[in-house]
Amino acid sequence: MTLDKVIGVDLGGTNIRVAVLSADGTMSHTARTKTKSEEGPEAVIRRIAALIDDVAADANLSPDAPVGVASPGPLNPRTGVVHFTPNLPGWRDVAIVDQLEGHLNRRVTLANDGNCATLGEMRFGIAQGKHNIVYLALGTGIGGGVVTEGVLIDGKNGLGAEIGHTLVSIDGPRCNCGSIGCLEAYAAGWAIQAEAMKVATTADGDRLVELAAGGLIHAGIVAKAAAEGHLASVAILERAGRALGAAIGSFINMFDPEIIVIGGGVAALGELLMGPARKMIPQYSFVDMRTDVPVVYSQLGGDTGLYGAGALAFMMFDD
Amino acid sequence: MTLDKVIGVDLGGTNIRVAVLSADGTMSHTARTKTKSEEGPEAVIRRIAALIDDVAADANLSPDAPVGVASPGPLNPRTGVVHFTPNLPGWRDVAIVDQLEGHLNRRVTLANDGNCATLGEMRFGIAQGKHNIVYLALGTGIGGGVVTEGVLIDGKNGLGAEIGHTLVSIDGPRCNCGSIGCLEAYAAGWAIQAEAMKVATTADGDRLVELAAGGLIHAGIVAKAAAEGHLASVAILERAGRALGAAIGSFINMFDPEIIVIGGGVAALGELLMGPARKMIPQYSFVDMRTDVPVVYSQLGGDTGLYGAGALAFMMFDD
Repeated sequence: MTLDKVIGVDLGGTNIRVAVLSADGTMSHTARTKTKSEEGPEAVIRRIAALIDDVAADANLSPDAPVGVASPGPLNPRTGVVHFTPNLPGWRDVAIVDQLEGHLNRRVTLANDGNCATLGEMRFGIAQGKHNIVYLALGTGIGGGVVTEGVLIDGKNGLGAEIGHTLVSIDGPRCNCGSIGCLEAYAAGWAIQAEAMKVATTADGDRLVELAAGGLIHAGIVAKAAAEGHLASVAILERAGRALGAAIGSFINMFDPEIIVIGGGVAALGELLMGPARKMIPQYSFVDMRTDVPVVYSQLGGDTGLYGAGALAFMMFDD
Repeated sequence: MTLDKVIGVDLGGTNIRVAVLSADGTMSHTARTKTKSEEGPEAVIRRIAALIDDVAADANLSPDAPVGVASPGPLNPRTGVVHFTPNLPGWRDVAIVDQLEGHLNRRVTLANDGNCATLGEMRFGIAQGKHNIVYLALGTGIGGGVVTEGVLIDGKNGLGAEIGHTLVSIDGPRCNCGSIGCLEAYAAGWAIQAEAMKVATTADGDRLVELAAGGLIHAGIVAKAAAEGHLASVAILERAGRALGAAIGSFINMFDPEIIVIGGGVAALGELLMGPARKMIPQYSFVDMRTDVPVVYSQLGGDTGLYGAGALAFMMFDD
């Protein structure tokens, strides 16, 4: 039996979102509640289950309609356990799939948000019809995923394809993850912010301080200043963009993809970041074979998590 | 019908080797002839076909026994075409699979030597029973392959997992492939040799010049000097080993493998190279999750190509 509909769950640090996804990509019955992670995993999971029950009732779904959950990681998709995540404080080895299946009369599956988003782009997004995809989620951190010949790369513990945590420079800055020289330590929102805060302590940084108007200097402020032509801000985004382009070149050698999709909030910086990146890509990938890979922006926007969770459920449970 | 036997072909710049591989890993009826690539692709392919016919007759193989060919790349395993390769001068877009099938009454399949070797390690070598494998062939260049959940990563053109050509440093040396800062530009035989030749022009390099005794200074000379305690040679191998370790750390984040296998001639340098590499790995991979991945040497030795070609044939044609 082919699945008609699934339920997608986008579990975030602030909100839980739930929606019904049809096989043709139609999204309906979206619902949302606060995560309130401070109440602990069991309360959050009960809240997810209740929201799923509401949505399923509204949509008249049969119990055959399964659930896909996109969660921050690290997590193990094979055991359905979320190990820990900075976005959900206090979570440690939470068996979210077992617990949700205990509350619901439905099959449940789990993957990290970057991998889900990659599947979402392949099934419903700009990578439809492609089977070799690199997806980069540029946000506060950098997540993403890789599909090769239709198969998601996720390794022995489902932890693989942490493409934000691959090497850009052996002599680079230490990343939040503990590794040295990761892409994330150059091009994530936090890394752009850290560079901006260094600049802000110098005379070059006056405009950043003005634009922040007493608030935090973040990547958006840097982008605004750069768009005005503020040279130090342009240089900050060039540094990030150059690292991103070098990493993308390396991913092309590594994965021979048909398409590279850029998503996440920092992608909104657009060509201020991606312009320098595009210039670098050919310098870091094979001259002869691989300079023609399209690097495009995701079109799924804020619904990437829901589409991704739905795509995961279709992939895992479709007959 | 399950396959009992296949024919493996290891096509190299100097020799063509052919053997019969049984499903249990027994190798028999090995044969060898000179490649003589200067005679052009058609002559070489006729020579391969003749050697296969000899071996098949000796081994009483039925026409059902298929052929796997391990060849230097770049090549396209889906079309069976070798694009070009420095080891086979003058080859350009050679349809080796079609041509061999024209000579033989057998099915033929093709993959690059690094990918074949990876499959060989999984089916017959030290990675038996593992499904998430990174294999590095450290030779004059650096090849290799990646298997994730049993699936070989090879991308849209079968070119993927060129793990020798992934980024070690955005500010690194230019690689022979044209990209900047590749692992190969640090740790391949040619890169070690290039460093040694720089050192040899200085007072620090006297011992290298002595050991070379008028011949070329190559990686083996550096290893010999390093084993004696020659500081500049130790430093050359440390530089290469550090890059290798950083890249392996990054591969761990990328692929979440169960095992990393080191093969190829340069692997014979052993712990002179791998010692510094092992020290670096934890600095370049996730602190909490992934520092326990075994990094081991291949045990297949000079027969890696034959085992790999056989493993490819079993994978592609076994029912």
